[in-house]
Amino acid sequence: NGLLVKDVIEFNDAVKHANPGDVITLANGVWNNAELVFEGKGTEEEPITLTVEEKGKVTLEGNSNLQLAGEHLIVEGLVFKNGYTPTNAVISFRKNREEMANNCRLTECVIDNYNNPERQVQDYWVTIYGQNNRIDHNHIAGKKNLGVTMIVGLDTEGSRKNNHSIDHNYFGPRPTYGNNGGETLRIGTSHHALENSNTLVESNYFDRTNGEHEIISNKACQNTFKYNTFYECTGTLTMRHGNETMVDGNVFIGNGKPSTGGVRIINETQTVINNYHIGLTGYRFRGAFVMMNGVPNSPPNRYVPVIDSKLENNTFINCDHIQLCAGSDSERSQAPRTSEISGNIFYNENKNDTFTVYDDISGITFKDNLLGENGVSAIKSGFENAAITLVKNDQGFLIPKSDKIKNEISISPKIATKANTGTSWYSKADNSVALNTGKTIKVEPGINTLYEIVKTSEAGDIIELEDDGTYLITKAVKINHPLTFKTVGAKKATVLFERMMAFEIQNGGSLSLENVSFDGTKSPDYAGNSVISTSKNSMIDNYKLFIDNCEFKDMVVNHSFDVLRVSKGTFADTISIQNSTFKNISGHITALDKETDDIGAYNVEYLIMKNNTVTDLQGAALRLYRGGKDESTFGPFLEVDHNTFNNVGFGKKNKYNAAISLYGVQVNDIQNNNFNNTKGLNMHLVVGEPIVNVVNNNYYKSDEVIVTGDQKYNIDKLYNLKPEFNA
Amino acid sequence: NGLLVKDVIEFNDAVKHANPGDVITLANGVWNNAELVFEGKGTEEEPITLTVEEKGKVTLEGNSNLQLAGEHLIVEGLVFKNGYTPTNAVISFRKNREEMANNCRLTECVIDNYNNPERQVQDYWVTIYGQNNRIDHNHIAGKKNLGVTMIVGLDTEGSRKNNHSIDHNYFGPRPTYGNNGGETLRIGTSHHALENSNTLVESNYFDRTNGEHEIISNKACQNTFKYNTFYECTGTLTMRHGNETMVDGNVFIGNGKPSTGGVRIINETQTVINNYHIGLTGYRFRGAFVMMNGVPNSPPNRYVPVIDSKLENNTFINCDHIQLCAGSDSERSQAPRTSEISGNIFYNENKNDTFTVYDDISGITFKDNLLGENGVSAIKSGFENAAITLVKNDQGFLIPKSDKIKNEISISPKIATKANTGTSWYSKADNSVALNTGKTIKVEPGINTLYEIVKTSEAGDIIELEDDGTYLITKAVKINHPLTFKTVGAKKATVLFERMMAFEIQNGGSLSLENVSFDGTKSPDYAGNSVISTSKNSMIDNYKLFIDNCEFKDMVVNHSFDVLRVSKGTFADTISIQNSTFKNISGHITALDKETDDIGAYNVEYLIMKNNTVTDLQGAALRLYRGGKDESTFGPFLEVDHNTFNNVGFGKKNKYNAAISLYGVQVNDIQNNNFNNTKGLNMHLVVGEPIVNVVNNNYYKSDEVIVTGDQKYNIDKLYNLKPEFNA
Ligand SMILES: [Ca+2]
Ligand SMILES: [Ca+2]
Repeated sequence: NGLLVKDVIEFNDAVKHANPGDVITLANGVWNNAELVFEGKGTEEEPITLTVEEKGKVTLEGNSNLQLAGEHLIVEGLVFKNGYTPTNAVISFRKNREEMANNCRLTECVIDNYNNPERQVQDYWVTIYGQNNRIDHNHIAGKKNLGVTMIVGLDTEGSRKNNHSIDHNYFGPRPTYGNNGGETLRIGTSHHALENSNTLVESNYFDRTNGEHEIISNKACQNTFKYNTFYECTGTLTMRHGNETMVDGNVFIGNGKPSTGGVRIINETQTVINNYHIGLTGYRFRGAFVMMNGVPNSPPNRYVPVIDSKLENNTFINCDHIQLCAGSDSERSQAPRTSEISGNIFYNENKNDTFTVYDDISGITFKDNLLGENGVSAIKSGFENAAITLVKNDQGFLIPKSDKIKNEISISPKIATKANTGTSWYSKADNSVALNTGKTIKVEPGINTLYEIVKTSEAGDIIELEDDGTYLITKAVKINHPLTFKTVGAKKATVLFERMMAFEIQNGGSLSLENVSFDGTKSPDYAGNSVISTSKNSMIDNYKLFIDNCEFKDMVVNHSFDVLRVSKGTFADTISIQNSTFKNISGHITALDKETDDIGAYNVEYLIMKNNTVTDLQGAALRLYRGGKDESTFGPFLEVDHNTFNNVGFGKKNKYNAAISLYGVQVNDIQNNNFNNTKGLNMHLVVGEPIVNVVNNNYYKSDEVIVTGDQKYNIDKLYNLKPEFNA
Repeated sequence: NGLLVKDVIEFNDAVKHANPGDVITLANGVWNNAELVFEGKGTEEEPITLTVEEKGKVTLEGNSNLQLAGEHLIVEGLVFKNGYTPTNAVISFRKNREEMANNCRLTECVIDNYNNPERQVQDYWVTIYGQNNRIDHNHIAGKKNLGVTMIVGLDTEGSRKNNHSIDHNYFGPRPTYGNNGGETLRIGTSHHALENSNTLVESNYFDRTNGEHEIISNKACQNTFKYNTFYECTGTLTMRHGNETMVDGNVFIGNGKPSTGGVRIINETQTVINNYHIGLTGYRFRGAFVMMNGVPNSPPNRYVPVIDSKLENNTFINCDHIQLCAGSDSERSQAPRTSEISGNIFYNENKNDTFTVYDDISGITFKDNLLGENGVSAIKSGFENAAITLVKNDQGFLIPKSDKIKNEISISPKIATKANTGTSWYSKADNSVALNTGKTIKVEPGINTLYEIVKTSEAGDIIELEDDGTYLITKAVKINHPLTFKTVGAKKATVLFERMMAFEIQNGGSLSLENVSFDGTKSPDYAGNSVISTSKNSMIDNYKLFIDNCEFKDMVVNHSFDVLRVSKGTFADTISIQNSTFKNISGHITALDKETDDIGAYNVEYLIMKNNTVTDLQGAALRLYRGGKDESTFGPFLEVDHNTFNNVGFGKKNKYNAAISLYGVQVNDIQNNNFNNTKGLNMHLVVGEPIVNVVNNNYYKSDEVIVTGDQKYNIDKLYNLKPEFNA
């Protein structure tokens, strides 16, 4: 009853004839475009098993996937990589809507960077249907395209009250997706929110699963989340729909990373107990703890008000934001009722008051909570100050100690760790290479020397240009791994280019430019040139772009010559432009507004523009656009500081009619800039309680700030002085 | 002195040691990524020759190209295909700005569909510099990406007064590019418009070179165009800049095809004589003859007024539009002066008056022109009626005969033909396959039967669905050649799909759907589904989409579910939607507005929407956008006729705030439609003297027509009747 199969035909034959107790073994090697349907009826004592000849030596690649259907099936050891599923799931616990898998187990399987190359094309990696299935010790990492990583579906009766166990899985890094649809686990949907799912999610490790603000989106009733570890995750375990959720004994480790969060409560009879949170910095919907306002008489797919819920015996160490009645607005006007916050420790060494209260909290009972010695709260009762110290325990956790803490705080030995989750045979190491971590290569001035050197470079390399050297590019330089270009010496090297772009950032590429001058006089006499362009195709990997101490000049051979031109379907983690000069340019520095579907997508998470001088720019210095009203993401984050803009934005083709045009940006920090004889700053504030600080800017003979939309903002210290520049 | 070389290293070595009289021969086979630099000094008597072992058996593929530099070089027999140049030219008559080619010849070379896969990335195919070069008998066909096919550059002194001969070349089909930059030949640039080029363009065949409205863009002085044939070209030989052009003895054959044109005059001392035009239908800048208004004291890069120019002894048979003072507007306010139109025949069997006069023609002397017997003209003098008959001559041309025609009309034996241009050994046959020209294949209902059948289909095939059959698609069906799907029988087959699109039109694909029902209830619960999607990557080939007698329903699983979703960098020749019903849909039928750079690009040339019934559509029935003020193209062309719109456009996410939203559309034919309880029609008219007829439409409890912009329009017979529908 053991059968080694070498291809899909043999596999199908083996499946067809499989009896209880049989073991079907995939032979070592690459299985390309293998769409496996594993169906059969095993028994509890004698399941049918699908395994591999040697773990780690069987890979499913290309357009491969797996469907399970039947009873008592075990799948172990499959590795999906180097490809993507042509269907909507990599592994599915059903063959079709009628034929599901029950009493089955998926264990020690791997799905690693198995992404559709179109980041905006949706798929799932694991879809769980049926009942009594166990999904354990799998390694699931690197999802980058649209769609939840793992879902539990409840769309038929046979998938409800399912008693599934999702345990000891390693959910590896999932980078910011830049829109809704980047969740790591979802149970249920709004359509079936009031069904009982009865799913146990236990001892899983969530390692930087940062796709969006819902790490887990719970959308059904009676689920339990225990002993999971959330490591540096920029989101929360969200009880989006459904009631009677138990969140018990989980650990949230933020390490002070931006936007890291804890638990968010919506709906009824939710219980959050015995959880440990440390170093979480997120605010608003990504707070360390968030209890939301609801919509009165809400339909199940909006926001059901919080009632009968409790936050008890949890520990918050150095967590910056506890958010109560969050999301309060004209629609979400119902504050929580008959709920309780008790027996928790809120200890912060750097911040005295971590509570933000957005509405009436009289429906929440506070008692027996401890604050640190300097802790304060506007909430008058139910809090006590305590002299707290932190002591590292055997597991390495900092445990608060105080004579006011009655029961010793402890972390369950069942808590997920990197070691006790996933598989032992598939590495969890991070293979990404950062900028400036490679070797230094010198490149001679000349024609296409830059093009040639890049072909032989490796990720992280630093390419050094010659002091005052001249580099002509007649072929666009493709950047498909992280590379730095810099001039060493006082006189910047000059780069000229005959193609519509000097550099094209392709999937996997990141670019740093330091101390280089770019001259547009050799560029083609067509509209639409740019110094840097992203791939026109979708890029599944987020990229980074740093420009420091560079010069961009004489880019007027035709109209619409931009410095950076991005495409739809690309997303930058960071674009930083600092200490640089821009002069005589017919287009924009950059227009980051290619996501026009208005579903919440945008082109960059962090944009920094600092200490630059921009002169005679016909287009806008910056256009940044986030359309739609989705609340799943919290960017873009914008910092514009200490720049000087002279004669910017007056070109006939500058359709933004501004030097800086912002739409839907979530964090707007615009400080200490000089606008001189320049178009102004337009800002449309539309969703998400954006942070807006426009402070200490000078507008001389320039348009000032125009704000539209319906959100609050702070504009202060706006001057109209004539700037004087030293020569 | 004959040397067979087998790779680039051998080639380079041969070039390095080449002496006058030497012949370097490329060995048969595929030369992949071969960037050849052919430089040397031959003599008039003993040139250095680069040739091929056997013509047609040497191909340069991948990222190959050729640069010539030196004296008396001959290149013959090279074929570039299956790839594209990484630089800005496939063949260049210089190595760099300083090292050019003089007294060289490029003959019997082929560049065939050698396109950059990004349609918006620019290159040239042949760039001619230096002096006294001959470019003859080449075959140059199928350019589809941005950029002029062949240019004569004048940017250095050594390239002016060049005495080049461009003769007997075959310029094969170039499809509509959909923006500026689709010219087939350009001589000079606006920067050097007043330099003498002295280039002879003789006996070339222009076969459907339809990239944009300038087939040839003359931008320098003293060029001659003789004996060229323009076959079904949707544009004109344009004297865009520069003076003293001679256009003599050319033939323009329109065959009644839309938008076919002749000669367009701007600037001074232009001579157009002895040309023969037949069956040209183009109007405005694509008229059979166009004499433009100029800008007073125009800078060379705008429109220099016409003076001292003449149109003499030309023949126009069945040409629909002669345009005088064309482009007259507030800027182009200077009418032609001291010019003459004499001795021409304007004979049209179907149209009595073919002249349109946009401004004062007192600066043009008319004399001795003949009209047909029924011909009329608002121009009072200089025209005479004549009884004209057409007689086919030996060459196959219809020659007008009349007793009033003094000198027999003749066509030079030097006139270009398909046979006497290009090469004898490279086929000029058209390999494109049309829809519905292949075999019929029946496809069973079931899961992915459509997906599987397409994999085995061939271009032009017709796939027959079963009467009332149900087809589920769990993998997107990729359309990469022309395919038709139709139900034979009274009951439409139903197609459901689990991916974000049922069909994806990829490069090379076209799609026809007949008598099929599409149901969105199985589609994923994400925003942004569509029944049909184009590739998200750039498509170099224009595509066609026909939808006839189909049904689209229940597409509301999430918001923004469109019927057709297109991407930037794609262009449809035709999208036709007829006799179909649309019901209960959360997005648009289609938003063709992905070209947001506002440089004149757009997504479709002809859009037809006829006899459809649209009910409960949350988005817009149509959004069609052409941004920018470029005048190089004349689309999109829109026909919206006999449709009924019920409850259309009221969705919160319909940002167009209209049932039909048009921006910059050039032809707007909107007739006989019923708008019932529906958002209205918005139309922004912005450039190009658009044709706008909004006639005989009914608006019941609906918004009506809102027109903005600065162009003329015709809105007539607008009713407000309650529609009554028969059951
Ligand atoms: Ca979400
Ligand atoms: Ca043009």
